[in-house]
Amino acid sequence: MLNITLPDGSVRQFVDGATGYDVAAAISEGLARNAVGVRVDGEVRDLHRPIDQDAQVAILTWNDADGKMAFWHSSAHVLAEALEALYPGVKLGIGPAIENGFYYDIDLGEGRMISSEDFPEIEKKMLELARQKSKFERRAVSKADAIAYFTEKADPYKLDLLQRLDDGTITFYQQGNFVDLCRGPHLPDTANIKAVKLLNIAGAYWRGDEKNKQLTRIYGITFPKAKELTEYLEKLEEAKRRDHRKLGKELELFAFSDKVGAGLPLWLPKGTMLREKLEQFLRRAQIKAGYQPVVTPHIGSKELYVTSGHYEKYGADSFQPIKTPNPGEEFFLKPMNCPHHCEIYKTKPRSYRDLPVRLAEFGTVYRYEQSGELHGLTRVRGFTQDDAHIFCRPDQVKEEFTKVIDLVLYVFRALGFQDFTAQISLRDPENKAKYIGSDENWDKAEQAIIESAAEKGLTTVTELGEAAFYGPKLDFMVRDALGRKWQLGTVQVDYNLPERFDLEYVASDNSRQRPVMIHRAPFGSLERFVAVLIEHCAGNFPLWLSPEQFAVLPISEKYHDYAQQVYDRLMGAELRGTVDHRDEKIGRKIRDAEVSKVPYMLIVGEKEQENGIVSVRKHGEGDVGSMPIDSFIKSFESQVAAMMDGAAE
Amino acid sequence: MLNITLPDGSVRQFVDGATGYDVAAAISEGLARNAVGVRVDGEVRDLHRPIDQDAQVAILTWNDADGKMAFWHSSAHVLAEALEALYPGVKLGIGPAIENGFYYDIDLGEGRMISSEDFPEIEKKMLELARQKSKFERRAVSKADAIAYFTEKADPYKLDLLQRLDDGTITFYQQGNFVDLCRGPHLPDTANIKAVKLLNIAGAYWRGDEKNKQLTRIYGITFPKAKELTEYLEKLEEAKRRDHRKLGKELELFAFSDKVGAGLPLWLPKGTMLREKLEQFLRRAQIKAGYQPVVTPHIGSKELYVTSGHYEKYGADSFQPIKTPNPGEEFFLKPMNCPHHCEIYKTKPRSYRDLPVRLAEFGTVYRYEQSGELHGLTRVRGFTQDDAHIFCRPDQVKEEFTKVIDLVLYVFRALGFQDFTAQISLRDPENKAKYIGSDENWDKAEQAIIESAAEKGLTTVTELGEAAFYGPKLDFMVRDALGRKWQLGTVQVDYNLPERFDLEYVASDNSRQRPVMIHRAPFGSLERFVAVLIEHCAGNFPLWLSPEQFAVLPISEKYHDYAQQVYDRLMGAELRGTVDHRDEKIGRKIRDAEVSKVPYMLIVGEKEQENGIVSVRKHGEGDVGSMPIDSFIKSFESQVAAMMDGAAE
Repeated sequence: MLNITLPDGSVRQFVDGATGYDVAAAISEGLARNAVGVRVDGEVRDLHRPIDQDAQVAILTWNDADGKMAFWHSSAHVLAEALEALYPGVKLGIGPAIENGFYYDIDLGEGRMISSEDFPEIEKKMLELARQKSKFERRAVSKADAIAYFTEKADPYKLDLLQRLDDGTITFYQQGNFVDLCRGPHLPDTANIKAVKLLNIAGAYWRGDEKNKQLTRIYGITFPKAKELTEYLEKLEEAKRRDHRKLGKELELFAFSDKVGAGLPLWLPKGTMLREKLEQFLRRAQIKAGYQPVVTPHIGSKELYVTSGHYEKYGADSFQPIKTPNPGEEFFLKPMNCPHHCEIYKTKPRSYRDLPVRLAEFGTVYRYEQSGELHGLTRVRGFTQDDAHIFCRPDQVKEEFTKVIDLVLYVFRALGFQDFTAQISLRDPENKAKYIGSDENWDKAEQAIIESAAEKGLTTVTELGEAAFYGPKLDFMVRDALGRKWQLGTVQVDYNLPERFDLEYVASDNSRQRPVMIHRAPFGSLERFVAVLIEHCAGNFPLWLSPEQFAVLPISEKYHDYAQQVYDRLMGAELRGTVDHRDEKIGRKIRDAEVSKVPYMLIVGEKEQENGIVSVRKHGEGDVGSMPIDSFIKSFESQVAAMMDGAAE
Repeated sequence: MLNITLPDGSVRQFVDGATGYDVAAAISEGLARNAVGVRVDGEVRDLHRPIDQDAQVAILTWNDADGKMAFWHSSAHVLAEALEALYPGVKLGIGPAIENGFYYDIDLGEGRMISSEDFPEIEKKMLELARQKSKFERRAVSKADAIAYFTEKADPYKLDLLQRLDDGTITFYQQGNFVDLCRGPHLPDTANIKAVKLLNIAGAYWRGDEKNKQLTRIYGITFPKAKELTEYLEKLEEAKRRDHRKLGKELELFAFSDKVGAGLPLWLPKGTMLREKLEQFLRRAQIKAGYQPVVTPHIGSKELYVTSGHYEKYGADSFQPIKTPNPGEEFFLKPMNCPHHCEIYKTKPRSYRDLPVRLAEFGTVYRYEQSGELHGLTRVRGFTQDDAHIFCRPDQVKEEFTKVIDLVLYVFRALGFQDFTAQISLRDPENKAKYIGSDENWDKAEQAIIESAAEKGLTTVTELGEAAFYGPKLDFMVRDALGRKWQLGTVQVDYNLPERFDLEYVASDNSRQRPVMIHRAPFGSLERFVAVLIEHCAGNFPLWLSPEQFAVLPISEKYHDYAQQVYDRLMGAELRGTVDHRDEKIGRKIRDAEVSKVPYMLIVGEKEQENGIVSVRKHGEGDVGSMPIDSFIKSFESQVAAMMDGAAE
């Protein structure tokens, strides 16, 4: 008999040879129907593969990440099967599942081409094959047999793959007439695949090496329900509409110039306004939280980085040093702000009473990225960190962590993000020797992070062994309006730099002690954060952040003077906006303001001028009625205040 | 007879052989008594030298810059005379007048030393010689006679100087028994020198070449009245007290670190607050004046600087290029922001209706300076320009210039500077070919600068031939509280970069035209400006700019809670300050706050707590009475408002 331990800790007994399916069926009929695989002692396997010993078992469905992987991996096999049917003699490379769907690399042979126009036919074939409810059957094969099979099939890619595999580890999977070299796991059968969409074609070198032949990579995605595919495609369209590179251009937020250099954003006036409002907001919140802004140069001498230890890590893949007329003198573009802040800490003696010292800087740093890796504002070569370094006593780590989490949550909420999680990275308890800092301090700091995250109600994942050698950390993740996860800022404990910079404070017993350093940047980078924010709100920024909060639209030249008065009143109240004095029809003015995503349009004509009022139109909503200018300002201000108060709660 | 034209345009006749003294005596006895020299057709000469032809003549007194030069140059001779008397056999190098006083380079010979302890004796000797009322007598000598004289005197330095002079141009000056090789001009006699102070000793290589022998340089200053010396020494002391490097350290505004690098300031929390308030103030004023803030990276690719023309000018004396893993790719630390702003201008088509486009950036730039040239914040390797570039039509140059002057005057006044002048640099009218841009545009732009400066009532000096090849400019100078002149910002017209970057706008006739570019930075550099401001106000910053506007000082621990309440109220009203919770006597707390130059000290004890009031003490003034917290806030705010309103007038 087998003792099977289920995720809830209960143990059930099954006859030898029982499968995941048997376990699922014993739990419930529905689970058995929806099961796509099984996790046995941490390993994901086919649902129908016998469980050969006592084990921890979890049934996987489409809703599990591993379940989706099995689903899409199986779908890749169905794609290959369809291609063999439609393009006889096609040679197959690899066909893995990926984050959203799967791909297969194929070689159609000389003279044959495939394009997205062929997708409908292939999709139709895939659905037809799926409906046959073919079982995915796993079998172990000897290396000799495997080579014989693919030699007969004349598939050079599978043969190349086989070269690298050891006899005794090789398995084939078969569904219908299609056989693939594959480790699995797979779905029980093809019937679960109810909706198919091929998405894209790209070139891909065999084994990623440009010296090899270029194959055709076909990307696709599948779902167990047609409705899910429809939703996915809508989200994909929406993501395209929200792409920050597209909106950044349309809303004139930022630009790139080949002459200035790839990956070096030029912030246009509207983007700068947005960026500066963000900075201002964060600066205020930080000052309130006891941070002290500082400003440091964008370069540092070699000696600084020798001390910090970064010098050894500068390699051929970095920005190279800046030499000067003075032989031997070298400067580096700063890749981070911490060494500079350590030098500020050192400008005067510190007592235990002075701690924590919290130095904050919107510090622009430069890191070389290969041009192929650059992507809009999310992957750049120069970016501004909303950086701060907290120098504190070991007994202050928890309080500081708690305060940082408070600040970060306030900031995220004020920007309209409601869904955040955190990952806590701790030491590998099996290998404590590789970490710098005392065991006691590590224990305290790790405990402090875990407790403060828990007290603040953060949803966390804890990863053992993921801490840097110099300290544990906590990373923030936010989920945007499309449900995508973005990694943003980090809070990192550091026992290393205080040591390297010989930082000290005088303790209450007059002894000299090392402070602990905490690096923290809630956004991580302003550039990346603005990109996420653009995509999260589709360019419809929170009112207080909108680069243009209003546009006054006179219905004809006759009302230009009154429009200007309205504009001046609003600007006097520190609102930001424009007045549209163009000689255009009011319809056109409204349309243009809607495209620019200006939150409020204030239309003025005869009635408005006579009564000293404005007709208010809200972006995406339409008319919201007429009101005196002062009422508009009041309503505007209370909306902004409500948002800030809501965030602070 | 001689026809002598006086500065007022009147012409008087004198007999042949008449001297400057005769002219002065003919004007007034007082002038003759105070005359120290004469300017004849632009050349400064001895007062008693005969005027040999009809000429424009101006009598110089101590109050003329050239008069002071003659005074101090003559004093250098008296110093040399005194040294020969006290140190027989001393060899003499050169002894010129300088901006404030004079120096003489001397060689005392082996085994003899001089130090500031010897100054009183030398000063006494100088005054004794001065009282002898020896005439400065000029005589032309042949080169042979001159060489014979100094060979006999065995003075290698004068002989070295003579090597380089042509026969027929050599003159000696003699007073008493002292003879010097000298071009003059000099005072009539030594009697005018009534007050003497030797200031300093330094080493100086002969002819400034470190391969030559090092001489001893003695600095001194003299005055026609003892009172003027006293005032000067007081001012010198005051300047030392106000030295921004000293105050910057004492007030914890900025610091330098060898590891970060010389000339690269670290802005400490209080300095950052000051700097950010300045930026904020200027940003607001600029936005009001129609500027659009932008942000650009601190590096630019080689191609950017090839286009701008700066690439050719990078030499071995600059920061060297930053290479990357990509062969041939090079970036430069940006030495100015204009090329980046040109690229922003080019991000979209511009119409004549869109102009002027005014792009503003607090852009940090990097320029390599030799370490010997670095000086506090006034000469650094990295500094932040309060930069803006105005792209306008040629017909808008005057209006833009006027607006820039308005803005600059507003800014300077708000910061407590009342005394400013400007230098206008125009083309050399004899050599128009060397300038880029059309003759018509130059004429218009020069006229525009002159007129707008005049309309704004600026005191200006106009310099022909001082314009850059690419456009005329206007430089602002301010005079600080000690009467010292500082060159600050510049407004520079530029016809070159629009050409090199191929900038265009669509004119009303649909033709493509080049915009004119105006570079402007009222402060020039924030670093330099902060240095000037510190020295101008001796660290007592205008209230609105003060990094710490108040300090709440509880007289004992019993009142800490109330002190905290006061602090919170003030911080809530957006004032900046601290509360002194230390366990110190109130006298000590007040003393420390006075040293930190905190404008307002708010003392709280039993009476204050009971009545909800604060006892206000003003820095440098003392008690100004008790008042409710709100009244203090109101009075504070109205002081700040008055300063801003005053500036705006």
